[in-house]
Amino acid sequence: MKVGILNIGTELLFGQVINSNAAFLSKELNNMGFDVMYHYIVGDNPDRMRIAINMLFNDCDIVITTGGLGPTQDDITKEIACEYMKDELIVSDDAMNELVGGYKKTGHKMPKNNLKQAYLPSRAVPFINDAGTAPGFALSNDDKYIICLPGPPREMTRMFKKSAKPYLEKFSNSVIYYKIIRTFGIGESSMEMTLLPLIDNQTDPTIATYAKEGECSLRITSKRKTLCEAKDAVDNMISEVNNLIGEYIYSFDNENFEKVVFDKLVENNISISSAESCTGGLFAKTITDFSGSSKIFDRGLVTYSNEAKVTELGVRLETLEKYGAVSEETAIEMAEGLFKASGSELCISVTGIAGPDGGTPEKPVGLVYIGCIYKGETKVIKIQMRNINRNWNRNYTLLNMMKVVYDCIN
Amino acid sequence: MKVGILNIGTELLFGQVINSNAAFLSKELNNMGFDVMYHYIVGDNPDRMRIAINMLFNDCDIVITTGGLGPTQDDITKEIACEYMKDELIVSDDAMNELVGGYKKTGHKMPKNNLKQAYLPSRAVPFINDAGTAPGFALSNDDKYIICLPGPPREMTRMFKKSAKPYLEKFSNSVIYYKIIRTFGIGESSMEMTLLPLIDNQTDPTIATYAKEGECSLRITSKRKTLCEAKDAVDNMISEVNNLIGEYIYSFDNENFEKVVFDKLVENNISISSAESCTGGLFAKTITDFSGSSKIFDRGLVTYSNEAKVTELGVRLETLEKYGAVSEETAIEMAEGLFKASGSELCISVTGIAGPDGGTPEKPVGLVYIGCIYKGETKVIKIQMRNINRNWNRNYTLLNMMKVVYDCIN
Repeated sequence: MKVGILNIGTELLFGQVINSNAAFLSKELNNMGFDVMYHYIVGDNPDRMRIAINMLFNDCDIVITTGGLGPTQDDITKEIACEYMKDELIVSDDAMNELVGGYKKTGHKMPKNNLKQAYLPSRAVPFINDAGTAPGFALSNDDKYIICLPGPPREMTRMFKKSAKPYLEKFSNSVIYYKIIRTFGIGESSMEMTLLPLIDNQTDPTIATYAKEGECSLRITSKRKTLCEAKDAVDNMISEVNNLIGEYIYSFDNENFEKVVFDKLVENNISISSAESCTGGLFAKTITDFSGSSKIFDRGLVTYSNEAKVTELGVRLETLEKYGAVSEETAIEMAEGLFKASGSELCISVTGIAGPDGGTPEKPVGLVYIGCIYKGETKVIKIQMRNINRNWNRNYTLLNMMKVVYDCIN
Repeated sequence: MKVGILNIGTELLFGQVINSNAAFLSKELNNMGFDVMYHYIVGDNPDRMRIAINMLFNDCDIVITTGGLGPTQDDITKEIACEYMKDELIVSDDAMNELVGGYKKTGHKMPKNNLKQAYLPSRAVPFINDAGTAPGFALSNDDKYIICLPGPPREMTRMFKKSAKPYLEKFSNSVIYYKIIRTFGIGESSMEMTLLPLIDNQTDPTIATYAKEGECSLRITSKRKTLCEAKDAVDNMISEVNNLIGEYIYSFDNENFEKVVFDKLVENNISISSAESCTGGLFAKTITDFSGSSKIFDRGLVTYSNEAKVTELGVRLETLEKYGAVSEETAIEMAEGLFKASGSELCISVTGIAGPDGGTPEKPVGLVYIGCIYKGETKVIKIQMRNINRNWNRNYTLLNMMKVVYDCIN
């Protein structure tokens, strides 16, 4: 079935916001076997919204809109959808309860104009908004379907996955199945060279490689009549890929490295603490992003100044003076001090130069030492990154810390 | 004059690529005083390109296309543009010289299909491609203008600035100037209600409100004959807005809250340390995202377990037992312990329930206490957030911590 996407919002036409909603929806809909024919973007203007909806329904069976569902006067998507589908807005009890309940919970008073959000088309299938106040919906007439979703990407993606996708699944007649394999420690070119025999002969499944922030992923995709056929084809290809680059693979399921590491820690009930300098809490923040992290994460000491390294971790002044804060010796003493303080089974430390300043010819920006104590064994790893920028350097250091933890417990 | 943007490329409809071209062009064109009415995205398909061009010229004077200028068979933008403008493709000597010269420079042999790129409409004003091989052009007929630019963003942005912008300047007879004001602590609806007297009477400058991840922004835009007039109008409106919601404004220049806070700390040379529980290092990570943070950031103690709170910060066991880890008392003792350890001028602490688990009827998920010591004064702030999800809760807690710091040092 043919789908058109209509993104509504003057901020898009001002160029203040990049339209990530259209890309997200396109990807999801293509994966479900739909043909996305058009993206159309208009401002909060009723005449131009009418032009766009008419134009899209000329050629498409389904139109998905984002934006214009909020409480303010210029939010008119519902009105325009009703007009096209010959329906009218009525107060929805579900939407009203959601709205009032949300405000009750926070203790805030509901502004009057928010009541607008309790109105939905009378024949609509309502979609609850998990992350905001404006509900979405599906509405149809004469084999034409409109799906209206909110504009903020966080609200839109959640509502799509939870409500719109299940609603749309009944219309799809071919199935795309894919798996994304994630690797660390191999570059995109090397990966492509190694996999060339498989890539060159590809028709279905197809193999695509992506490089992203120091990691490398592989997407293996099959489009077949049934999910079962597509799944088999992808699984067979995965085992061939695994034979060639298995040592670099940490996930066959598009999980983040940090998620894989976190799950392993929890699964094996290994307590962990961190002592960070250059990453400034990024490791601790990343581990505690996961709910349930209190089961394994004890503490994270961000010892940014030399004084903090001495008083919090017992790093010796003479070590700092003789070898410097960015050194093998300091990384080890940080891990040792952390182990003494926390008693965690796995203690990881990091010290380095994230840049852009602070580098010297002997210790350039991008030099990092990672220390680690696990099961009575201390190790330290030196990494000299290609200095891309502070943000990249810190994130790539984080991945290397994850690699150290992963290697310890695997 | 009214402009429509037409982005051509199947990769956009697959969602493989986010459409940054539309945002770039919109921003530039708005700033030049044009009204961008539509973005339209289609694949490399002649019928749908015709539909889009006809539709856009129905309402617009100028259409700007990106994509479909390359050497392959599915690149057909030039053909479609010629059709609409009643022109024909001929070999352009300029384009041919550029093309051949470019290949000579690199020493690569030119593939045969690249010759296609030397053809341009006979009446076209050609635009040289600095960063690739496909030339662009402007073409007109009967007061309708089409500007065709290449698809790769690097080529497109360079060609726009160097050739398309100067070409378009003659059509513009006004200037748009705008400022984006950022606020924290006021919801979108309340903001709109408060500003209603200004919004209701708006013609120029216009006021638009945007909500994003717990924050709220305002865009104030004026379109006048001269930049000076537009700037004056915006500045006057800003002072009216400031009278009404000044207490919530932290930036008149679209800066992030964390950037504003960081800059203030550096400007006033105020040393800072953090003690975090529920945010797990997010505050420390955010402050140390900025280069130069070592000048002001001393340490960040992520005391996730109760034991860590006791041993690292000296929180008393009886406090934890009597009031719990998530309490005013614990937040205060965390800040006090941090102050003793670090001696930093500003010590901030946080303890709360980020969820999804760990909530109780008395202490639901989303309850957070922020403690702070500055200039001998200790304060503690209680926040009950609407529980959206762990990630949102943590980020919103971070913003509240920034607010506490901001209020201290302002």
